[in-house]
Amino acid sequence: MLYSPLIDKLIQALRCLPSVGPKTAQRMAFHLLERNQEGAVQLAETILSAIEHIQHCQRCRNLTESTICQICNDTRRNSELLCIVESPADVLAVQSTGVFQGLYFVLMGHLSPIDGIGPNDIGIDVLQARFNEGEIKEIILATNPTVEGEATAHYIAELAKQYHIKTSRIAYGVPVGGELEYIDGGTLARAISGREHYS
Amino acid sequence: MLYSPLIDKLIQALRCLPSVGPKTAQRMAFHLLERNQEGAVQLAETILSAIEHIQHCQRCRNLTESTICQICNDTRRNSELLCIVESPADVLAVQSTGVFQGLYFVLMGHLSPIDGIGPNDIGIDVLQARFNEGEIKEIILATNPTVEGEATAHYIAELAKQYHIKTSRIAYGVPVGGELEYIDGGTLARAISGREHYS
Repeated sequence: MLYSPLIDKLIQALRCLPSVGPKTAQRMAFHLLERNQEGAVQLAETILSAIEHIQHCQRCRNLTESTICQICNDTRRNSELLCIVESPADVLAVQSTGVFQGLYFVLMGHLSPIDGIGPNDIGIDVLQARFNEGEIKEIILATNPTVEGEATAHYIAELAKQYHIKTSRIAYGVPVGGELEYIDGGTLARAISGREHYS
Repeated sequence: MLYSPLIDKLIQALRCLPSVGPKTAQRMAFHLLERNQEGAVQLAETILSAIEHIQHCQRCRNLTESTICQICNDTRRNSELLCIVESPADVLAVQSTGVFQGLYFVLMGHLSPIDGIGPNDIGIDVLQARFNEGEIKEIILATNPTVEGEATAHYIAELAKQYHIKTSRIAYGVPVGGELEYIDGGTLARAISGREHYS
């Protein structure tokens, strides 16, 4: 035993944070104990409060402490347009572009039969209920450009077709500001096949 | 406002951890909320318990939940030999070498007049009290090889001289397994001046 049991327990507990290994956890533990006890107490209390109060928005499944999240409650947004994303962080990414004024739907994952994640695990039933309401006229599929994200987008596109909802998928192509020579072949091939013609 | 207030508060609170910036804090917050609520609660409770119970060992100033830490309480260790380090992590570093069987004294910092850190802020009074007890026959100064660590080691060496305590400083030199061409000039110069003669 290198530490006292409680310090050891703190180091182990910190390892539940993503990409925190034993060395980082040790550094964090000593930092909290030696230099920032006040911050540590606040962190602990905020975690407990967040775990207790944060739930899924009943409209869009995003994380929120209200029944309906701020975005869904915002009447200035276009409620006929829905951007479908995999995670709360993706909502933030789209929001920060400033070009989207519709509402969101957060799948909280993607279809992955191999992991036993089917349509209802990613809220397709909730989404379908919204399609049934008839308010949504257009959806933008902004799932990740991965195999699973692609399959999920395809599945939702098929569903939307039954409701005659206008459907699009975010474009593949070269990242703005990137240099061609460093872009992988697959992306470049999609950028060429999806080229925009000058009118 | 990009998030609900409570999520925003959680992200801010996570930033009290060392080298956690806004992006990492966001990823941690979503990880805790989406994937590891159980771990999050345990983390919070462990932090609160650690902050409440962990204190400084009355003998060596290391962090512990007991009045006297496990190492100071270990009667199998050589209580005449004291290794003086700057932080609890340094105790761990020395312990993991397995070559030291004495006791430790943790300064919890180093002398730094510019930051207003004087001898009593790093427990020199406690250390002197132990020198006065007369049990300690030898000390090893294992403060960091920095200007401040060096000054602190020098200060303690002067103090120990008054008590006729045998004093040494950990060696400077090339790291084991390193390659000479990548070692900085200062270190190499010290390795040469401190060279060990074959007997």
